[in-house]
Formats: sequence, C-alpha cells, structure tokens
Amino acid sequence: MEINKERFGVEFIVRDYECDLQGVVNNANYQHYLEHARHEYLFSRGINFVDLHNEGIDLIVTRVEIDYKYPLRSRDRFVVKIDIQREGNARLVFIQDLYRIPDDKLIVQARVTGVATKNGRPVQPGKIISMLGLG
Amino acid sequence: MEINKERFGVEFIVRDYECDLQGVVNNANYQHYLEHARHEYLFSRGINFVDLHNEGIDLIVTRVEIDYKYPLRSRDRFVVKIDIQREGNARLVFIQDLYRIPDDKLIVQARVTGVATKNGRPVQPGKIISMLGLG
Amino acid sequence: MEINKERFGVEFIVRDYECDLQGVVNNANYQHYLEHARHEYLFSRGINFVDLHNEGIDLIVTRVEIDYKYPLRSRDRFVVKIDIQREGNARLVFIQDLYRIPDDKLIVQARVTGVATKNGRPVQPGKIISMLGLG
Amino acid sequence: MEINKERFGVEFIVRDYECDLQGVVNNANYQHYLEHARHEYLFSRGINFVDLHNEGIDLIVTRVEIDYKYPLRSRDRFVVKIDIQREGNARLVFIQDLYRIPDDKLIVQARVTGVATKNGRPVQPGKIISMLGLG
Repeated sequence: MEINKERFGVEFIVRDYECDLQGVVNNANYQHYLEHARHEYLFSRGINFVDLHNEGIDLIVTRVEIDYKYPLRSRDRFVVKIDIQREGNARLVFIQDLYRIPDDKLIVQARVTGVATKNGRPVQPGKIISMLGLG
Repeated sequence: MEINKERFGVEFIVRDYECDLQGVVNNANYQHYLEHARHEYLFSRGINFVDLHNEGIDLIVTRVEIDYKYPLRSRDRFVVKIDIQREGNARLVFIQDLYRIPDDKLIVQARVTGVATKNGRPVQPGKIISMLGLG
Repeated sequence: MEINKERFGVEFIVRDYECDLQGVVNNANYQHYLEHARHEYLFSRGINFVDLHNEGIDLIVTRVEIDYKYPLRSRDRFVVKIDIQREGNARLVFIQDLYRIPDDKLIVQARVTGVATKNGRPVQPGKIISMLGLG
Repeated sequence: MEINKERFGVEFIVRDYECDLQGVVNNANYQHYLEHARHEYLFSRGINFVDLHNEGIDLIVTRVEIDYKYPLRSRDRFVVKIDIQREGNARLVFIQDLYRIPDDKLIVQARVTGVATKNGRPVQPGKIISMLGLG
C-alpha cells in the first residue's frame, strides 16, 4: 500500500511513557493518536471540537475498528493520514492509517465511525458536513 | 441482551481522570478497561501476561472492534464480562461486553483478536489454549 | 513508619497498562492514584468533585511534592492513605502515603496542596472546610 | 520571570484527550510532558533512555516538586525548558519550566530529582554526568 501524499496527515513521535512493559506503544494509545489526528483534521476545516462541545454539540465515536499491523517503539516517528466519508444521513466515517516515518511502513489501519449529538440526541450535522466538503 | 452471570467478569469504578472534557470516559480508556479485564481473566486461568513476556512470549492484539453504545460518567460502576473463542489455529478472540452497575445497561461491546508471538514471530500457543480450556 | 489503620484509605491493584518500558508503574500514574484517592476521600465526606465543578466551584491542585521510595510492578496491590490539613485561610493540604499490600512497604509519600476556585478565582471554601471537619 | 532562550526546550500542543472534565489539562499529564522533555534533552546529549534500560541502567525519578501556576487548555501550545544540576555525588536535578506559546506565560515550575541505578542499586553515573557536561 502506498501513502497518498495528498491526504491530510498529522506527524508524531512516540513518547516513552506511551510504551508499556512489552516495550512497545500500548494499544490504547493508538486511539489517542487517532483522536488527536481527527481533531486536527476537523480544525483544519474550521471545526473546533471544544467550541462545538461548549455549544451543546458533541461529536461522538460510535464504533472503532483497528488493525494492528506492526508495533511502534520508543522515539519512532509516524504520521496519521485521514480520509473522511459519509455513511447514511447521520454518520461520518474516518479512514485513518498510521505509517512509520521515514520508511512508510504501515503500522495501524483504522475505521472510526462518528455521529453528532445535540444535548445527547443524534442530529444531522449539516453545517459540519458542508464544512468537510461532503454536503 | 441479558448478562450471563456465569461469565467471568471484572468490576471497576470510573475514576475522574479517565473522563475528558466532554465529561464522559474518553474512548481510549475503554481499551484500558478491556485490557485489564483480559489480563485478569488470563490470570484466573493461571496465565501471567508479564511472566510470559519475560519468557519471550508476548500476547499481541491484532484487531479490535468496539461499539460504543452509551457513555460512562464520573463514579459510574461497571463490569467487563469476557468470553473467549479460538479462530483458526493461531488466533484467540475475546468477546468483551461492558455493563453499567447496577442497572446492567450495555455500555460497550468489543471483539478483540490476539495471537501469541515468540521473539516477534507468531506461534501456536498450545499450552495457553489448553489452560484456557480451548484445546 | 507504621500505617495508621484509622486513616481513610483507598485500595488499588496495578493494571499492566500503567507500567512503562522499565516494567514498573510510570511516575505520572501515581498522580492518578493520588487524585482518585482524594476524590474518594472527599466523596466519603459528602463532597462530589464533579457536582462542585458543575456549580462553578473547582478544587485545584497548586502544588505537589512526591517522594518515590520504591517501585510498584504488575498486579501489585496497594493502598493510598490520606490525611488532610488546613494551611492558612484558603489552602488544603493532603498528606498521602501509598503502601504496598500486604507487606505495608512504603512506596510513595506525597503532599498535595489545593485551593477552591469559583469561576477561576480562589475562594475560602467554608462549607467544604466544615464538611471536612476542619472548620 | 523571563525565558532564557538559550535553554534546551521541547515544544508541544495540548491534545484534547489530555484534558479532563474540568476542561483543562489533567495534573498528571504535566508529568508526562516533563518526562518526555527530559528524555529529549538526554537524547540531545547522546543519552538514550531505552538503550540504557536495555543495558541494565535505569534513570529513576526519586522526587518531584511541581507548582501549578496556570492551567493549559485544548490546543494551547507550550514549551518545556530544562536546566540540569548535580546534587551530591549521585543525584541529578532537572529544573523544568513550562511556558505557554506565544505569550510566555508561566504555567508550571518543576524540580525533578533522579538517580541512576544498575540492576536496582544506585550507581554514580560517571559517563552520563560527563555527557551532560557536569563532570
């Protein structure tokens, strides 16, 4: 699989506290990386996760699928690449792939489904969809 | 869905630091809960995750699927229930459901696939499979 | 040093994800343990950290001093013991000691100073001080 | 207090998952930032924390003092500045100050004391001290 250099990406370096006693990044931390990359992606489109929350609109993850292909270790550099798709009326799907830098080795593939809720109830996020160019 | 009271379970209480700025448990922390429950389950069958690591055998997660049904909040009590299945020769699949206590509300459903590796290469974990009663 | 069995305490077990690549609990996680124990202590006195936040009152840590005496490892059980003192008009000081179970080995000694703020400004937490029996 | 621009520094941006239900970075996460900055500092001097561990030498934190001056929020950028001193024969003291970017507001001041251990026993880290220019 080749990296599409056009896709939005966020770069990271592994911090030692993110590694567990197996000496590799703990599985849960990949969800942290993926979340941070999504929020940066949204921000690049003018969508601020926290501002939305303060307006009563929450972007909520309803499902994650993550395939762990190869472990990251201390000080490894990597990039999380993101695509976004609509699924039905209400759901957004983030396709997120994580590659080690500089050898482009595929580390993790993820598919993260989300919805927008207003005061706890799902809403169709028209404005968000349009800001994401999916409208 | 009803809880099968016979299944192995581990009880937790939400700690405030596990909640994020949306006021609910951050998605990644469910992977922490699920991992801790798996390790407790293995331990109950005489399998010590760390001892195995020190012998060069690592239990590795290769895939997670998590459905987030309902959020947990500060001080919520909950239980992670576990079943285990074989998949092919080398893979173990953990079926993990997380229920709030005491109302048994379904919070998260997860399917976590793992393999055993020895010095980085997959091995058929015969002894582990037999200790888990799957042999 | 002997444990004062009368002091309020919260029991924990080390979860594997809390250990880092040195094979011991990562230093930052002790702050998590200490925080959870403080919130449980406050709750035992009728003070709910989250409810206070939702009323605009935040309990804020202004200083921590932590002495790390001995490391915790996978599956170690331990207790965090708590005493509380006033310091001046506005500050509360939590004296927190962490002991391994069952051998009472001293693991960590901490002194955590906090203040109450209302909408970001320090306030004298009269009601809290009285609920803590320090009034 | 002015920032000494000559001091070694590591830049970060707050990630949303590092914030807790008070909407600010959770106190424990500052220890993560401080640790990562120390390891980067050591690395800049040719000292690799993980390689040392694999040789049986562990750099261990024995005491932290942290003053929390002002909270960080979602997406805040900041820098951790580091100085290092010897204390007695065996101890190293890291003076670490965290400033928000770009306004240089002081967020956290920390003093972190560490020792080197070999197979669990303190050693005088002659080579490390010389690589740090403290010999």
